[in-house]
Amino acid sequence: MSDSVPSLAPAAELLSEMDSMRAGVDQALAARLEFDHGCPPRLAEAMRYAVLAPGKRLRPLLTLLAARACGGNTQRAMPAACAVEFIHAYSLVHDDLPAMDDDDLRRGLPTCHKKFDEATAILVGDALQARAFEVLATELSPATVAAEACAALGRAAGATLLVGGQADDLAGIDGGEERPRLEAIHHRKTAAMILVSLELGALVAEATNEQKSALATYGEKFGLVFQITDDLLDARGDEEEVGKRVGKDADRGKLTYTTLVGIEESRQLVQRQVDEAQAVLEVFGQAAEPLRLLARMLVDRTK
Amino acid sequence: MSDSVPSLAPAAELLSEMDSMRAGVDQALAARLEFDHGCPPRLAEAMRYAVLAPGKRLRPLLTLLAARACGGNTQRAMPAACAVEFIHAYSLVHDDLPAMDDDDLRRGLPTCHKKFDEATAILVGDALQARAFEVLATELSPATVAAEACAALGRAAGATLLVGGQADDLAGIDGGEERPRLEAIHHRKTAAMILVSLELGALVAEATNEQKSALATYGEKFGLVFQITDDLLDARGDEEEVGKRVGKDADRGKLTYTTLVGIEESRQLVQRQVDEAQAVLEVFGQAAEPLRLLARMLVDRTK
Repeated sequence: MSDSVPSLAPAAELLSEMDSMRAGVDQALAARLEFDHGCPPRLAEAMRYAVLAPGKRLRPLLTLLAARACGGNTQRAMPAACAVEFIHAYSLVHDDLPAMDDDDLRRGLPTCHKKFDEATAILVGDALQARAFEVLATELSPATVAAEACAALGRAAGATLLVGGQADDLAGIDGGEERPRLEAIHHRKTAAMILVSLELGALVAEATNEQKSALATYGEKFGLVFQITDDLLDARGDEEEVGKRVGKDADRGKLTYTTLVGIEESRQLVQRQVDEAQAVLEVFGQAAEPLRLLARMLVDRTK
Repeated sequence: MSDSVPSLAPAAELLSEMDSMRAGVDQALAARLEFDHGCPPRLAEAMRYAVLAPGKRLRPLLTLLAARACGGNTQRAMPAACAVEFIHAYSLVHDDLPAMDDDDLRRGLPTCHKKFDEATAILVGDALQARAFEVLATELSPATVAAEACAALGRAAGATLLVGGQADDLAGIDGGEERPRLEAIHHRKTAAMILVSLELGALVAEATNEQKSALATYGEKFGLVFQITDDLLDARGDEEEVGKRVGKDADRGKLTYTTLVGIEESRQLVQRQVDEAQAVLEVFGQAAEPLRLLARMLVDRTK
């Protein structure tokens, strides 16, 4: 047990380093949402509102930290980090729309269609998706890395993964085999974007196959933990702290881990997956310490 | 005058050749909308409904014919042709949504959100956009061409062009200088996608700068003619033949060429631009004959 608990000092150092990284991501995102001309000011404002609201920046951090674990330069991975956050932000804006999850609050603030209007929110999502690919294609080099990154993100954000998962999620419980179905939805809606965030970092760092495979296993486990802790927050959370309406999933009869296996078993599942996620990073040695910490932090997340 | 009117025989041959190309495009689009697993069947069905409805396939034809004019292989350009049609189809599905143009008919059939539902229509558009970039990134080679194509399409489909144009279009007449504003909206909403369709064809064919520049001028003129003839159809068209509600633009006080400069001047503008569009293709010789014909065909379009 004590093996997996690092001394407090390095964790504190790492935490402050991750805060700096997060600030760097915010700056990089903002810089890529400045448009010289041609973009209607209200649309640009709404795009910035959707992306730059305070957030965990989990996916960009995964990209940067994966690049670092593989011996790459985190600055070179920044365009990829921005691209995954643009896709993530677009998917939240569209998921919140009245025709979808119909949410009024996101990260403690009015959702994009509440703050602006529905048409603007649809266009914000559309424009953010295009921007994600544009950033990858124009800023990553060499061209092989740029093309591979666009291919990986296109697959993750497409009909079989991100969008397909949301479609199935909206369809709700259909009375079929629930556990496999929940896992399939989770895999597509949440894990796929976490996996591609790590994959892009590895791509930029020109990682070995062994490194890529370790990150993929870590990503699967990290994604599962993220989803279950999200369900736990929804089941038990405090609305103000979480920053969005809670209890809504169960109200809607949505399939969640807490309704399916119960809160206690969900918590045990989390702990097991976190331990395994940390263990699989052995191949990277110390370079993966921030990724290990990130996994541990999920256990106690409050939002 | 007689110089610009070709004899009937070659035109008839070209027309039948273009019909074959269009059939080839339809096959290529359908093949790229087959998903092995992971894509919810209803989402896949709605994506095919949105893309494979009978259409002119103008943008894919422009891509293929631009590649051919530049001495390239049209089959190699097929992934790019599909990508531009996916973006076009997604933009129509989202434009038709209740929160946007709120249209019930498209190409003579119920719009996607009418045939399916609003959430599905939003997801169809999102998934088609991702698919467009995935197809470019995975199917074009070498990687430099794939990356450049993603960059060009990302720019054209983004906040400053396609999406920005739609945002301004929705905002309607704001009492400012109308002619420049109309031209800016038109440039972004229509011409940008026509230009990038030609640009991707040129990219795949590894065109010279002279060829690229001629295609860009042709594209500007072609795009203007396309927009004005669309406005003319809306102002005077027959709803059944056009396949969508007509007269709607003027009803909504939208800025159009026919309301701004009148029907007669719009027609003269069309003829002038078509003549110029054909002339600028001289650099390609006979290889650009289909592009010339395509421009002439716009003059008499009925849908």
